[in-house]
Amino acid sequence: MRIAVLGAGAMGALYGGYLSRRHDVLLVDVNQALVDAVNEKGLAIHEPDGSVTMCRPKAAADTRGMASVDLVVVFVKALFSRAALESNRSLIGPDTCLLTLQNGSGHEETLLDFADREHVIIGTTQHNSAVLGMGEIRHGGSGKTVIGPLCGDAQRLAPIAEAFASCGLETICDARVQQLIWEKMITNVSASVLTGVLQAPLGFIAEDENAWALCRTLVREAVAVAAGEGIAMDAAEKIEEVRGVCLRSPQGITSICADLRDGRRTEVDTISGSVVRAGRRNGVPAPTHEAMVALVHAMEARVQRKR
Amino acid sequence: MRIAVLGAGAMGALYGGYLSRRHDVLLVDVNQALVDAVNEKGLAIHEPDGSVTMCRPKAAADTRGMASVDLVVVFVKALFSRAALESNRSLIGPDTCLLTLQNGSGHEETLLDFADREHVIIGTTQHNSAVLGMGEIRHGGSGKTVIGPLCGDAQRLAPIAEAFASCGLETICDARVQQLIWEKMITNVSASVLTGVLQAPLGFIAEDENAWALCRTLVREAVAVAAGEGIAMDAAEKIEEVRGVCLRSPQGITSICADLRDGRRTEVDTISGSVVRAGRRNGVPAPTHEAMVALVHAMEARVQRKR
Repeated sequence: MRIAVLGAGAMGALYGGYLSRRHDVLLVDVNQALVDAVNEKGLAIHEPDGSVTMCRPKAAADTRGMASVDLVVVFVKALFSRAALESNRSLIGPDTCLLTLQNGSGHEETLLDFADREHVIIGTTQHNSAVLGMGEIRHGGSGKTVIGPLCGDAQRLAPIAEAFASCGLETICDARVQQLIWEKMITNVSASVLTGVLQAPLGFIAEDENAWALCRTLVREAVAVAAGEGIAMDAAEKIEEVRGVCLRSPQGITSICADLRDGRRTEVDTISGSVVRAGRRNGVPAPTHEAMVALVHAMEARVQRKR
Repeated sequence: MRIAVLGAGAMGALYGGYLSRRHDVLLVDVNQALVDAVNEKGLAIHEPDGSVTMCRPKAAADTRGMASVDLVVVFVKALFSRAALESNRSLIGPDTCLLTLQNGSGHEETLLDFADREHVIIGTTQHNSAVLGMGEIRHGGSGKTVIGPLCGDAQRLAPIAEAFASCGLETICDARVQQLIWEKMITNVSASVLTGVLQAPLGFIAEDENAWALCRTLVREAVAVAAGEGIAMDAAEKIEEVRGVCLRSPQGITSICADLRDGRRTEVDTISGSVVRAGRRNGVPAPTHEAMVALVHAMEARVQRKR
């Protein structure tokens, strides 16, 4: 299979590396130094068991003039999805499938501007990964990849799932993938966004009475919005789950917390922002998520001004 | 008239000082050094025109065993109102009136635990003042003081208004004082609370697109809650007013912003918190104010932890 992975960050490199074991993979990134490093030295994946998997995907910063591929996996930071797809349009032909495994929900809204509903695939992954250096990542943990179509039978995606599985990425086709995406997103739109706004570690959210009250409100609002999307979740169960995540990593610094601390733009629009948009679509109020999105964007702007 | 002023901060000292020109005034504060300074040197009020008004109210830190007074003016930081009234119970007899001119609304909830409805007076002031040193304040600007009863005819408060006016404090009795209190509070519960949460000056709130959107939401929610209390305000008008306050003091640091920056407890419970409580009383939702109260309290706790 001819596959392009957009974004050679921790997750893009992980999937690009693994998929290159049996497929023709092009890893695309705007960072030319990273592209050169991958082309020269290959990609080193430090596995949880201490072993190192070496992979040799091709890498490129500029894909203009290249032929279209069978599958484009979008793994850039969500706020760059549109720019990445636009810059790499030549890879997208009429038969190319676009797959997002990015955090958050609603990424299909962007992908649908580059392919029709039959060719857009959404999904979620349980893998996690961190960048160690140029062409070097730490594979923190494994798990399932679930992919699903926006319309029609999930089983038509079986060839893609098999292509992934043949490279050691356990993958399932499931028409209820939106449910899984929302389930996974609940922690991000509650505890994680609060660690950003409060600039505090995960443990503080569960331990501080007021932060925890706000976190519960965010979970309940998101569960109500999800119900409007036809996705059923139990708020009390999700609250317990989020509490567990916080208490298991009390010193955990989320990416949104680090992004705001370091003055980077965050992914809040595809995390909390997707709850707000889904709420508007279905007439379910999400005022606390709206407030969080506004606060995070204001914090992004404030940091820019201080520079 | 025998008057006790609880709290010798900037505003308490201003009123205590002015009222001592024609009345028997006791300024009460927990800060013994401040009490000693006032008793020894008097109180110096630096007026806007450059002149200095010297006043000689009595001052005390401990009022146990003292006789009751005609009027107790509560000017401590709102979160200490209950403690201050409890410590100075001996000043409150069956005929003592309790007057609050504190920022925010709902202070009567606390005062009513120390006097009946006939003896509780609420009000608002247009004066402003800042502490310069021990027994020294800067009178920033003058304006009207409006006082009103919780029940009955406002004109029965005329003797108090006259007592104030005779000392140079222009004072009006008005049964619609709650309206004025809410009108004044709108800026505090919108722009000011956001300067605290975002740790930014007032100008940023009006200039940043997202902060300003959130500010407008806070005004609209507060106006809806006020309507539930029988207080009519025009949201669009109030939004313009708040914008004007922000743009006229772009570098302005509010007290809630400074309190959070310096690790002090804030008055959020009698500002935004009073909107939340009024909303609950009348079944009007105020989710964005609820979020702000929770965030501010979480920020207070976070600062405490960092120490």
